[in-house]
Amino acid sequence: MLDIKRLSIEDARLLIKEAVEASNAINVPMCIAVADESGYLIAFERMNGGKTASISIAMDKAFTAATARRATHVYNENCVPGKPSYGIHNTNGGRFCIVGGGLPVTADGVVVGAIGISSGTAAEDQQVGEAALKRFYEATGYQP
Amino acid sequence: MLDIKRLSIEDARLLIKEAVEASNAINVPMCIAVADESGYLIAFERMNGGKTASISIAMDKAFTAATARRATHVYNENCVPGKPSYGIHNTNGGRFCIVGGGLPVTADGVVVGAIGISSGTAAEDQQVGEAALKRFYEATGYQP
Amino acid sequence: MLDIKRLSIEDARLLIKEAVEASNAINVPMCIAVADESGYLIAFERMNGGKTASISIAMDKAFTAATARRATHVYNENCVPGKPSYGIHNTNGGRFCIVGGGLPVTADGVVVGAIGISSGTAAEDQQVGEAALKRFYEATGYQP
Amino acid sequence: MLDIKRLSIEDARLLIKEAVEASNAINVPMCIAVADESGYLIAFERMNGGKTASISIAMDKAFTAATARRATHVYNENCVPGKPSYGIHNTNGGRFCIVGGGLPVTADGVVVGAIGISSGTAAEDQQVGEAALKRFYEATGYQP
Repeated sequence: MLDIKRLSIEDARLLIKEAVEASNAINVPMCIAVADESGYLIAFERMNGGKTASISIAMDKAFTAATARRATHVYNENCVPGKPSYGIHNTNGGRFCIVGGGLPVTADGVVVGAIGISSGTAAEDQQVGEAALKRFYEATGYQP
Repeated sequence: MLDIKRLSIEDARLLIKEAVEASNAINVPMCIAVADESGYLIAFERMNGGKTASISIAMDKAFTAATARRATHVYNENCVPGKPSYGIHNTNGGRFCIVGGGLPVTADGVVVGAIGISSGTAAEDQQVGEAALKRFYEATGYQP
Repeated sequence: MLDIKRLSIEDARLLIKEAVEASNAINVPMCIAVADESGYLIAFERMNGGKTASISIAMDKAFTAATARRATHVYNENCVPGKPSYGIHNTNGGRFCIVGGGLPVTADGVVVGAIGISSGTAAEDQQVGEAALKRFYEATGYQP
Repeated sequence: MLDIKRLSIEDARLLIKEAVEASNAINVPMCIAVADESGYLIAFERMNGGKTASISIAMDKAFTAATARRATHVYNENCVPGKPSYGIHNTNGGRFCIVGGGLPVTADGVVVGAIGISSGTAAEDQQVGEAALKRFYEATGYQP
């Protein structure tokens, strides 16, 4: 039997609150998804003005960061024609998202969930996710 | 009427056992799928710590290597924009996986199944698959 | 942060071994899937003679029993036109399987995974799953 | 290693020829699909006037009869709300077809492929499939 750590709904609310503040700081209303360590959605918010196309993108970014245990922008850098991991964006029924903005959430070095941000540029999405994570780690004391 | 050779469950178990050992040797817990010559799953193991995103990737690598009768990394090298086989990764409902780590299993030169490995880098996945195949051929006497 | 219990690959192998024996006892070669508490596949075996149509059915039964935390035959009894839960078999992209043969695996009353059996009649599939679970609980000491 | 028997393209052509004749005998132009024992299409003909909606239905009937190793009308009789196998029509991504007209092709008691007929009523589809199979067994000497 394995012992698994997983974000609670309280953790997910905190992540969303921090991501909303980070989105407001750059004036880009975002879709924000928080997934558990298995990639399942725990909480989601589409801010007023968030793009509807970004609903599933945010979810897929969180899904990917949780289940592949790596930030989506890392896959973006490597998923290039001619490189060995090219084609990975087609897997998992197309849900494997390689656009920046998906980040694993860790506690003591173990992935316990993920956050996915979408509606801005990939750089903005990533920036908001990283800002939210930074504040989340400060507030909770979880070690990344 | 055609006569077809196909991996048995006993063959599949042996392939998985060898892949688990090869995974342990490089300290990367893997998802391991073994498919028959038609791409249908015979056996699967997700080692403790194997990535959940890799479950379907391992299966799709085995499916592709069996049904296209070629290692997935070969398609990776050729599935590049501007080359004639570009686009093949979109076929078969997206299950045609061109990331390295899928290898046909042959007996007397005929494809009788395939193995698909996923959770490491594409190079690690391929390395584990090749190590497992090498040991499998030695143990069974099947000629690749 | 939540603490989750999850079947290990060692647990999954034991479940499959017991299911194979129970299948042999009634002379029906089965497809056997073991999923974790989130419905993700841990291990799978298609016995020689198991039906290929049953590969995804076994997986879907395990997925359903794990994620809905109830045996699939219970849904079969209730998913009848005119009853309140009719239509649930269409959810989750069609993966919600209501045919008997999917059973949650519990430890101290908590669902830690599931087993899905397919290739026989629904009654045979359920029988094999129940026999495997009974032996699994005896061998491990986990309390259902 | 398993030894599998599978319909050849010559067998498939003969099945289609016989099904075309049986269709002409009742004046219903049909879609006719012949699959191998793994459910993969070997040959297909849409007679002039055959319905386009029936293309995938004929394929799915052949897929189902091959991979579940049973005539589709048998599942139709049992896949009734309140019966244990209800819901099976939703499996395999919706390809599990329970409408009559899909029949396994056997040789010496082993399923080596299947035929799927569609465009008429379910009864007509089944009738054409059975007539084609009868003539096929007579012509080839394969024992059903």
